[in-house]
Amino acid sequence: MHFNMKEAIEVLERTPQTLEHFLSGLSEGWLSCHEGEGTWNAAEVIEHLIEAEKNNWIPRLEFIIQEGESKPFPPFDRFSHLMESSERSMEQNLLEFKTLRTENITKLKALIESELQFEFTGFHPAFGVVKVRELLSTWVVHDLTHIAQIVRVMAKRYKEDVGPWEEYLSILKK
Amino acid sequence: MHFNMKEAIEVLERTPQTLEHFLSGLSEGWLSCHEGEGTWNAAEVIEHLIEAEKNNWIPRLEFIIQEGESKPFPPFDRFSHLMESSERSMEQNLLEFKTLRTENITKLKALIESELQFEFTGFHPAFGVVKVRELLSTWVVHDLTHIAQIVRVMAKRYKEDVGPWEEYLSILKK
Repeated sequence: MHFNMKEAIEVLERTPQTLEHFLSGLSEGWLSCHEGEGTWNAAEVIEHLIEAEKNNWIPRLEFIIQEGESKPFPPFDRFSHLMESSERSMEQNLLEFKTLRTENITKLKALIESELQFEFTGFHPAFGVVKVRELLSTWVVHDLTHIAQIVRVMAKRYKEDVGPWEEYLSILKK
Repeated sequence: MHFNMKEAIEVLERTPQTLEHFLSGLSEGWLSCHEGEGTWNAAEVIEHLIEAEKNNWIPRLEFIIQEGESKPFPPFDRFSHLMESSERSMEQNLLEFKTLRTENITKLKALIESELQFEFTGFHPAFGVVKVRELLSTWVVHDLTHIAQIVRVMAKRYKEDVGPWEEYLSILKK
């Protein structure tokens, strides 16, 4: 086990700025490419990250602190951002993500007053009993998953272009 | 096929600043974790990217332009950075990577005077005939591969910590 608050927050606070420096100003070809029907492009991944800031991490943490295991927390629809087609630019979405994340890290620090709270438990609708430390670790890994997804989707755009080097580039086989 | 110079350079020029914003100031635990014996931590990935800036992309491009297919280009040792244990900090390595990349993009723009050169061919020691467009596309995908590697390695550090959420986090299974 490796989770601790300081190191978790290090990643959480870097994700928006990392994605901002990577995605701002990229050509539409990079931002709209995807891995096939039903898969997400970079723009949709950012919308999903925004949705999770609004409805997943902090709301669930607050739910655990208030309700414990007494009732399951409301399910988070991982696909809800796909329902509303966004009119906003990548830059606007990146700014919203960064703003929400900053607010949520402030809330996180206010909600966790003691490390004892890491062991507090809630009731996940699919998994059953889960701990605060597991929720917060998942928040971090969820960021990393979606950074990996964005670069993988973009890499695959050049799958044909790399010619025989495809053999050395395992990212193109995933 | 999707390769074009403008879009390729968009990614190449963003990689160093993206990694700088992601990795600068991270705790040692994040920078030194790896996927097991014989695998690279984030620090070693940056050293590998530096090595490739020095000895792979631009030297091979110059070799193709000068020699064509007449002789195979010298093999690039993908593990050479592991031979010399680095005394330098992550910040120093990120700065060197950024500096080399900036210089190499300038060289790239000077070397490629016409799109006709994308079809120029060289002789790869393992693959045989390769094109300039394949080499340059590979440079881009190589960046993306190693960004994905760094976030995957870091994600796996929390493999146990996420508890039952592991089921939703495919990055932990790779």
